Amino acid sequence: MKRIAPISVAVAATATAAAICPPAARAQSQIVHDAEFVRMEKEFGAQWGADGSAVREKLAALEDKFGTKPNIVFILADDIGYTELGCYGGGKIRGAPTPNLDKMARRGMRFLSFYSEVECSPSRAAVMTGRHPIRNGLYNITLPGEVGSGLHREEVTIAEVLSAAGYYTGFFGKWHMGGEDDHHPTNQGFDEAEWSEGNPPWWVGNRDAKATDDVGGFTQRGMIHSPGPENFPYETGGVMRARKGREPEMVYRYSMEKYNTYDSEVADHVIDFIGRRSKTDRPFFVSFWGKGNHFWGAHPDFRDTPAGTNCAAQMVEHDHNVGRVLKTLKDLGIAENTLVVWCADNGPMYTVHPHGGYSLLPGAKGETREGGVRVPAVAWWPGMIEPGQEPLDLVQITDWFTTFASLAGAGGHIPGDRVTDGIDQSGLLLLGEGKGRRDFVFHWNRDTLEAVRKDQIKINLKPRNPDFHFYEVYNIYHDPAERFPNEIQNGLWAGPGMTKLIQEHMLLMKKFPNRKVEGYYRDFDRSFDPEPSPVYKTKKQVDW
Amino acid sequence: MKRIAPISVAVAATATAAAICPPAARAQSQIVHDAEFVRMEKEFGAQWGADGSAVREKLAALEDKFGTKPNIVFILADDIGYTELGCYGGGKIRGAPTPNLDKMARRGMRFLSFYSEVECSPSRAAVMTGRHPIRNGLYNITLPGEVGSGLHREEVTIAEVLSAAGYYTGFFGKWHMGGEDDHHPTNQGFDEAEWSEGNPPWWVGNRDAKATDDVGGFTQRGMIHSPGPENFPYETGGVMRARKGREPEMVYRYSMEKYNTYDSEVADHVIDFIGRRSKTDRPFFVSFWGKGNHFWGAHPDFRDTPAGTNCAAQMVEHDHNVGRVLKTLKDLGIAENTLVVWCADNGPMYTVHPHGGYSLLPGAKGETREGGVRVPAVAWWPGMIEPGQEPLDLVQITDWFTTFASLAGAGGHIPGDRVTDGIDQSGLLLLGEGKGRRDFVFHWNRDTLEAVRKDQIKINLKPRNPDFHFYEVYNIYHDPAERFPNEIQNGLWAGPGMTKLIQEHMLLMKKFPNRKVEGYYRDFDRSFDPEPSPVYKTKKQVDW
Repeated sequence: MKRIAPISVAVAATATAAAICPPAARAQSQIVHDAEFVRMEKEFGAQWGADGSAVREKLAALEDKFGTKPNIVFILADDIGYTELGCYGGGKIRGAPTPNLDKMARRGMRFLSFYSEVECSPSRAAVMTGRHPIRNGLYNITLPGEVGSGLHREEVTIAEVLSAAGYYTGFFGKWHMGGEDDHHPTNQGFDEAEWSEGNPPWWVGNRDAKATDDVGGFTQRGMIHSPGPENFPYETGGVMRARKGREPEMVYRYSMEKYNTYDSEVADHVIDFIGRRSKTDRPFFVSFWGKGNHFWGAHPDFRDTPAGTNCAAQMVEHDHNVGRVLKTLKDLGIAENTLVVWCADNGPMYTVHPHGGYSLLPGAKGETREGGVRVPAVAWWPGMIEPGQEPLDLVQITDWFTTFASLAGAGGHIPGDRVTDGIDQSGLLLLGEGKGRRDFVFHWNRDTLEAVRKDQIKINLKPRNPDFHFYEVYNIYHDPAERFPNEIQNGLWAGPGMTKLIQEHMLLMKKFPNRKVEGYYRDFDRSFDPEPSPVYKTKKQVDW
Repeated sequence: MKRIAPISVAVAATATAAAICPPAARAQSQIVHDAEFVRMEKEFGAQWGADGSAVREKLAALEDKFGTKPNIVFILADDIGYTELGCYGGGKIRGAPTPNLDKMARRGMRFLSFYSEVECSPSRAAVMTGRHPIRNGLYNITLPGEVGSGLHREEVTIAEVLSAAGYYTGFFGKWHMGGEDDHHPTNQGFDEAEWSEGNPPWWVGNRDAKATDDVGGFTQRGMIHSPGPENFPYETGGVMRARKGREPEMVYRYSMEKYNTYDSEVADHVIDFIGRRSKTDRPFFVSFWGKGNHFWGAHPDFRDTPAGTNCAAQMVEHDHNVGRVLKTLKDLGIAENTLVVWCADNGPMYTVHPHGGYSLLPGAKGETREGGVRVPAVAWWPGMIEPGQEPLDLVQITDWFTTFASLAGAGGHIPGDRVTDGIDQSGLLLLGEGKGRRDFVFHWNRDTLEAVRKDQIKINLKPRNPDFHFYEVYNIYHDPAERFPNEIQNGLWAGPGMTKLIQEHMLLMKKFPNRKVEGYYRDFDRSFDPEPSPVYKTKKQVDW
């Protein structure tokens, strides 16, 4: 559906070509990894080879049993801080218990050192492409009214990679990687999708919204600087539905009332999808990218938490929905053939505290301090992932891309003409702690490399303490909250090894240049201009 | 043993009388509680009565089975932050796994809202007497060279209360409540004890210490401002051993080498004590107040942690020792008749970071911010405490005093001529979450009431943010790290209810005045004066 008439026509002309772009043709490609990974590969190659054989053996046995490749359910939660789940030391103490995710962790694998990108759209683009946002170009949060900013059509998504290997793919929930035709999930590899472009800035931005609408504790007046409900001078649209290559239709226009219950609505779609697809012979990949834990809006059935905040209601609701999805897989008898991965897209957003989530780690969404990027992640796969594991191995959100591809036997469809940051972590999942394949993470914030983690050490290239110039160094085991920079012996920590690692990372960008994605704001439809706000004058006045 | 000749003679004259002071005579006393507790008692009296009957029934059934009152093992750990154990979200991520305490929690009860006093000696005096340090007078940390500061002889300790009810009592480990005769554990109700007066300031303070002594990563030169090893101008003594009413003997003089392995040594004594006492008919109470997690010194067998710090080695060693004690109880077949309580005395000490422990909650030892006083606590009692519970009920460290007395049927021996802050939490232990009997905690820091917690709300009477005058208010569910004061609606939170609660607390102090304990420093033995440090001069000099 072309809801942004003057722009979308022009873009639509290329959209179809992009959607059909066949990754299958790249079947023989070799993944281009960062230099530091190549170094590790040289060091640990022999061990990795043996591990790889063990993984392939386990997968082959599973395929023999079920007759297909494994299904993959990927749940991406919004703005959940590292310490929000009960199993990470949160839950009840935050007035929002998370029994389902805790159980998922007990029966699966809980990642202690999982890192996202710093914020929403970039993290989504990272996991979709296996590439840091600086490379795939989507390193800013897309906003209503922006044009040209979104997931670039020449990026190859995990949906495209898995489709090429025979998977049926579905997307449900919050997309937030652009709203133009090129960006639609069904033009980015998904066979079917029902999605919203983004969060409250879209959902409240229509003429019917009232300043007093029920948004679970907040009124719209408190949301945006605009004094009235007409925060955006144009129609922001609604929830869209489409099948691959077809024109999308609008399911309903955005409204806060629908937003309140959106996570549960998305879960319903996911459960319906799983039910339908479990009756076919093709393996499926489904993305459940829900609402929680994201500031405004709270489902009426979940508002009675001890904390009494929107985010507590959202956390409890989302936890419940995760439980419903897992129960569906068990009830259908396909749990043993389905990997479920749950993780957060970034840390909490304090702008709307107490309704925006929390982390005991200092730092928020948009920052490379630990609180912004170290987030919870859980994987569950009965019979394949040993229950109760809590690996300390470093994992970065791009790794899901490469790992899903590997588990699906689709690694050959990953393009070899660009750098892929995601690392195949199937050994970690199936063989356990210590089998992770990275001991480093690059923390980009928009177009700046702000920090690098290597083993226990994190170097902040943009120090927060004004007494430090050039860099701060932390030992993340000693000081996970980054309170005591340069503890002792910083010379050793940030020596030539770290310099070389950063240098090679930057040099590779010269060889494989980063994509440019530049959004701009479209002109206003002036007919939406609201009446000017009335000016307040006291009723009682004294003349003097 | 009179190691401080000129003072201890005078004190010793009264010591024996104090030790014999018979709490049994007070069997009919009524506990004097704070006004807020009295208010709660009025509101919940009927429910508490029914709960009390259920608790007594469970205890009677146990006594029928074992023929005695239950044994009590009380483990007090030093400076362990809220998030240090694996089960609190720490452990592995701090490079120091805690499998034994995690298992104890899984098989017992893990307290999510347990509060200590702000620092070492005060917390110890609080748990010994069931009274806040401001009341019992020991609200400063005792230091080497100080005289007159310690646990007052007219305070009634849990050892005295339990002794009066027929218990055999033992103390092992770090006492830190004064070193004069009056203060000795065996003059404060314990039948037998082997103890050290305090921590490294005592252990390094002897003439044989060398600046290069092995203290697990640190040299003494880095410890105290003094340039040499002779930090104290007198002998600080050594580890003491005694039986009730007998003169103590010194087991060995303090040395860093012995300090490195002290937690394991104390555990050995505790295990030996349990083995001996399990062969008798009398129930026992034993205190295991170990070393870990306390800055200097690391056991050679536990230094190979991923973190490589003293405190990681101490944490792992102490966790191992807790496991040894629990195994002993199981092996002897007395686990079902023994309550084991483990908790920390206060938050971490960052003075010696990275060797002094850690908490993700901001605030350290000596502070009433959450990091200073919210600490981990675990209880284990197979068959009596339902496994896997994680109550959010507020518990304060003084509560162990009253709870132990209650479980031992010794509540009648608690004196009725003074305020007791400890609340009987036996219902919480034996009946589970929601059965706790406090929804408030007073946070005193030395002689200042700095903060009060009531339900989810904490009021800081001494704000840290200079923009707030008079007080800051936090919702601890929304904001456990106390980052966002006065969130919203502070008028409601800190209204007349909170004022009344504080007012009544202070008024009760007029009726039952606080004890005064005032230490002073004794004169130096000048013969210990070290040679002055050599003055550094460069060997190469240029004349110009």
